[in-house]
Amino acid sequence: MTALAEGPILFTSEGTICGGKDGERSMTTLGRILIVEDDPNDVELTLMALADHNLANEVVVTRDGQQALDYLYCRGEFHTRPADNPAVLLLDLKLPKVGGLELLQQVKSDERLKTIPVVVLTSSNQEKDMMRSYRLGVNAYVVKPVDFHEFVNAVRELGVFWAVINAPPPGSLKK
Amino acid sequence: MTALAEGPILFTSEGTICGGKDGERSMTTLGRILIVEDDPNDVELTLMALADHNLANEVVVTRDGQQALDYLYCRGEFHTRPADNPAVLLLDLKLPKVGGLELLQQVKSDERLKTIPVVVLTSSNQEKDMMRSYRLGVNAYVVKPVDFHEFVNAVRELGVFWAVINAPPPGSLKK
Repeated sequence: MTALAEGPILFTSEGTICGGKDGERSMTTLGRILIVEDDPNDVELTLMALADHNLANEVVVTRDGQQALDYLYCRGEFHTRPADNPAVLLLDLKLPKVGGLELLQQVKSDERLKTIPVVVLTSSNQEKDMMRSYRLGVNAYVVKPVDFHEFVNAVRELGVFWAVINAPPPGSLKK
Repeated sequence: MTALAEGPILFTSEGTICGGKDGERSMTTLGRILIVEDDPNDVELTLMALADHNLANEVVVTRDGQQALDYLYCRGEFHTRPADNPAVLLLDLKLPKVGGLELLQQVKSDERLKTIPVVVLTSSNQEKDMMRSYRLGVNAYVVKPVDFHEFVNAVRELGVFWAVINAPPPGSLKK
């Protein structure tokens, strides 16, 4: 994982062209985490918690829903990214351009993307946001703890489960 | 959580009648774990791992897919169970009577049950089982480690994430 950069994106991937040869795999792609978060403090804290606990996954950060969709569909600046889907997508709900629920709906209604595990990580503990997320097919829903240490611990547990314990769908190994 | 009993079912719940008054809640129902597993050794190990790590959730064990459906639909021996859905369902795939994939399909296609988080916990690392599970809408898929300590650790991480960190759908609080 890289250290936090100043630019809008953390993008550590190198390798195969998106939509490359069938069966083409990269050793680094299994367990990739895609973060969709516009708050730089939450991004920094999340990356720190993941790094502290040796979650040696490749992490990609996108800052709004549109940029996340560009990543998922290998468009624009992401057209050369490795072809595999991320092993998990950490999704904030309040996002610029394309909101989190809209992004979730799009992912879960697209045959190419619907098996990607999506974990909502949000400050919203409102029942309507939870229910809407579950109805749309979210895999898990985590309310960001306000306390610093609890936040770091939640991200640690989340990271361990989704990047180490969970077996990601075969689609995350080859596009 | 109770200690392991000899009978076919561990059932620790007491309280409201299934399908009771709207809004009726029990303090003990948040975070209930429903285990569907026919292997007594795996049941014992899972319960031990959860207990060791102070996951103070109420745990219900059913031994086959039919019994799990009876639980979910509050039928037969479960007609007096608390009305709330479990916060997570841990599902083995190779089960007597009704198989794990069939049970998963039924849960995820029923409006009353589809938001229940389902985590497959299986010895199968076959791509077809993973893909089928994700296509059916499984929330997570964990391959049982063969090593004892790794198994206990995986259940611990799984338990912490799903019983503590994840916010279960509002439907798990009242039926």
